[in-house]
Amino acid sequence: MKNILIIGAGRSATALIKYLLDHSETENLKLTVADLNIELAKKSTLNHPNATAISLNISDEIERRNAIEKADIVISMLPAFMHIEVAKDCITFKKNLVTASYISNEMRELDEEVKNAGLIFMNECGLDPGIDHMSAMKVLDKIREEGGKPIHFESFCGGLVAPESDNNLWNYKFTWNPRNVVLAGQGGAAKFLQQGSFKYIPYQRIFRRTEFLDIEGYGRFEAYANRDSLSYRKVYGLENAHTIYRGTIRRVGYSRAWNLFVQLGLTDDTYQIEGSENMTNREFINSFLYYHPTDSVEVKFRLTLSIPQDDLIWDKLVELDLFNDTNKIGLVNATPAQILEKILADKWTLEPDDKDMIVMYHKFGYVMNGSAKQIDATMVCIGENQVQTAMAKTVGLPVAIATLLILNNKISTKGVIMPIEKEVYNPILDELEKYGIIFKEIEVPYEGEIM
Amino acid sequence: MKNILIIGAGRSATALIKYLLDHSETENLKLTVADLNIELAKKSTLNHPNATAISLNISDEIERRNAIEKADIVISMLPAFMHIEVAKDCITFKKNLVTASYISNEMRELDEEVKNAGLIFMNECGLDPGIDHMSAMKVLDKIREEGGKPIHFESFCGGLVAPESDNNLWNYKFTWNPRNVVLAGQGGAAKFLQQGSFKYIPYQRIFRRTEFLDIEGYGRFEAYANRDSLSYRKVYGLENAHTIYRGTIRRVGYSRAWNLFVQLGLTDDTYQIEGSENMTNREFINSFLYYHPTDSVEVKFRLTLSIPQDDLIWDKLVELDLFNDTNKIGLVNATPAQILEKILADKWTLEPDDKDMIVMYHKFGYVMNGSAKQIDATMVCIGENQVQTAMAKTVGLPVAIATLLILNNKISTKGVIMPIEKEVYNPILDELEKYGIIFKEIEVPYEGEIM
Repeated sequence: MKNILIIGAGRSATALIKYLLDHSETENLKLTVADLNIELAKKSTLNHPNATAISLNISDEIERRNAIEKADIVISMLPAFMHIEVAKDCITFKKNLVTASYISNEMRELDEEVKNAGLIFMNECGLDPGIDHMSAMKVLDKIREEGGKPIHFESFCGGLVAPESDNNLWNYKFTWNPRNVVLAGQGGAAKFLQQGSFKYIPYQRIFRRTEFLDIEGYGRFEAYANRDSLSYRKVYGLENAHTIYRGTIRRVGYSRAWNLFVQLGLTDDTYQIEGSENMTNREFINSFLYYHPTDSVEVKFRLTLSIPQDDLIWDKLVELDLFNDTNKIGLVNATPAQILEKILADKWTLEPDDKDMIVMYHKFGYVMNGSAKQIDATMVCIGENQVQTAMAKTVGLPVAIATLLILNNKISTKGVIMPIEKEVYNPILDELEKYGIIFKEIEVPYEGEIM
Repeated sequence: MKNILIIGAGRSATALIKYLLDHSETENLKLTVADLNIELAKKSTLNHPNATAISLNISDEIERRNAIEKADIVISMLPAFMHIEVAKDCITFKKNLVTASYISNEMRELDEEVKNAGLIFMNECGLDPGIDHMSAMKVLDKIREEGGKPIHFESFCGGLVAPESDNNLWNYKFTWNPRNVVLAGQGGAAKFLQQGSFKYIPYQRIFRRTEFLDIEGYGRFEAYANRDSLSYRKVYGLENAHTIYRGTIRRVGYSRAWNLFVQLGLTDDTYQIEGSENMTNREFINSFLYYHPTDSVEVKFRLTLSIPQDDLIWDKLVELDLFNDTNKIGLVNATPAQILEKILADKWTLEPDDKDMIVMYHKFGYVMNGSAKQIDATMVCIGENQVQTAMAKTVGLPVAIATLLILNNKISTKGVIMPIEKEVYNPILDELEKYGIIFKEIEVPYEGEIM
């Protein structure tokens, strides 16, 4: 029996655990699911005979090391900043490790030690980061093998509500961490490379510099810039590309409306509003508008943000109950961002029968035989239900598949790695196709400039 | 002889030193001006027989303590964060201390010790903070003494170019620290109280929420909100006021034009621009605009920021050489804010004959005998030349006058204090009038709401 220790039984672990349990007989697997919340761990094992749930306090060194020592491989689905202690124990006990998180500086520093121990620490192996790397590298490697030279790379990803459950004016519901959605774009200007020039977009412009994306069968989307696109140059071997841009996908119109919140200051998470508990939505909004003895909150909002009387953006605001003067915020000394999240959660929480949707879109511009060409690769994944969501599947399945590849000695690269090698991405992408996570590649006319 | 140690001989010390030297015979004063730069210290003493210049490295404990021990009183004109070691030595050697800086938390914590030692540490005794406190408390105390109840307080201050030297479209030149001007408004939302409601303005709206101010003989000004107006409630005894607002004064039109820089992201100081050294102004601006193969930087700027063809705001940009494609920035890996400061400094530096101007404006709304009244107090001070600037005078003279009051035992309050007591502000404001720093108080119709 091969023992797999899964640390963290949260939402992102459901599809991962199910996949491994479904393969536990043929692959001879024994799962141990560890979580601080033993009930959550138990629930996630689905009463399967090949799974055991244990309670684990990750900051209890003895508990943690005991669990890791017994495993053949460790999967950490903890928040990114909590991986490092697990990783150090994995070196001590010579265990391989798989995570879906970005490689932190601390993790990167372990590379030499991990290599010396002959181990694999596979990171960034979920959706984004994860499937984005794999699907991009697959096309980039193919272009290079055929003698092409990539010059233009754009990559977009978004977690949205499925079309069949899309019934609000924002065409959006919270399918993952609402806090991250409210704080999106903060923490520094977005940086990217376009036609050979560095471009910078400050937070206050991000949601007004969007790009449209069309996907056959799913209609039109839009994308706003992610904070750092430049770090992908080196990882993907795109040092000679003149355009590198990464963005987040939403339905058309979302960003222009969201920008109203940014402009008013509703997404600020740096200070608390005195007396927020007893404020109504309307009073909250009014605290960001100029004072006037008689003008209504609505007229002040329209005037401040230049919203014409016949602009449907207004209906999006009304739909959120933004001007409601009877309900109370109910959060004590909350930040504007926390209050906005609460207001949105009241409207954007998935209903029991709602499904989510993951959309990924890559554009690869390249020169081959002297002419510029472009391949667009798109992937749309719809969730099955509120447990096997598209998000849980796209994050969890690559982790699970990578774990089996490592257990079966199919990966030869050692060290702190990410899934950008052919030996990793090919088998994972092939297996993902069986689960409906399929990239569609089409040749389109090159849309950049020739430089 | 009374020995006064002045630490820091920078721009803000010139008027202060001159005042003390002019009074050195009658008041029996001996000045020691200490600076890391001995030449600067020497120059500031004006070769006066009652002054000595010494070289002082403030982080050299022995040097610093030697100098402080010899003094009867210490004036620290160092940057605010450097006062604390001086203050601790002043306690050790039982010396009184005067500064023009905001009371830091560290300084506040010394209050008990300072009181126990029977000492006076007078802070916030320059212009803003300083003259603002004194002039406001004088009117507020008078209103209260006459049975009035203050309900509305607004206070504005600005360092500008004098009308006779005002010859650019922004009606602005750098008269103090340019870096602070570029970073103005950053670091958190502006918070204030208006008609009983807390109001919040995020950075991206600050320069669009201005208020006009008219001063007879000087025309119209505008003011944008300072970050924290609320801390003045307690200090001024305005806990029952329903409006408390502080702002920064500029000439009309400045803020709307400055907002273009904020919106584009040119004031960002959090990241460096790769290759900034060899960039032209035009390339710098273009890195904040969308890419287009043929549109000019000018047309992209106009479109991005919705500037009509006939808006004079455009001429302000052209005047700054913003679209110049031949000059080089010349700063290595600079932040956008540093580059913008450089571009502005090329145009906004005072000419040798230019004079500066300080403007202060308070509004006091109060209820007396059941009716609402308002007093507006204004002060305009024009600099004499580039040494005895209005800024140096308004910052330095109150410090100098306070120092003599303390030396002559005219101040009875002990501890870490600021100039809000009658025994302090009355003699200082009276003396300032002799130097042309005069507040004009007028009764005007109350402009707030009765609550």
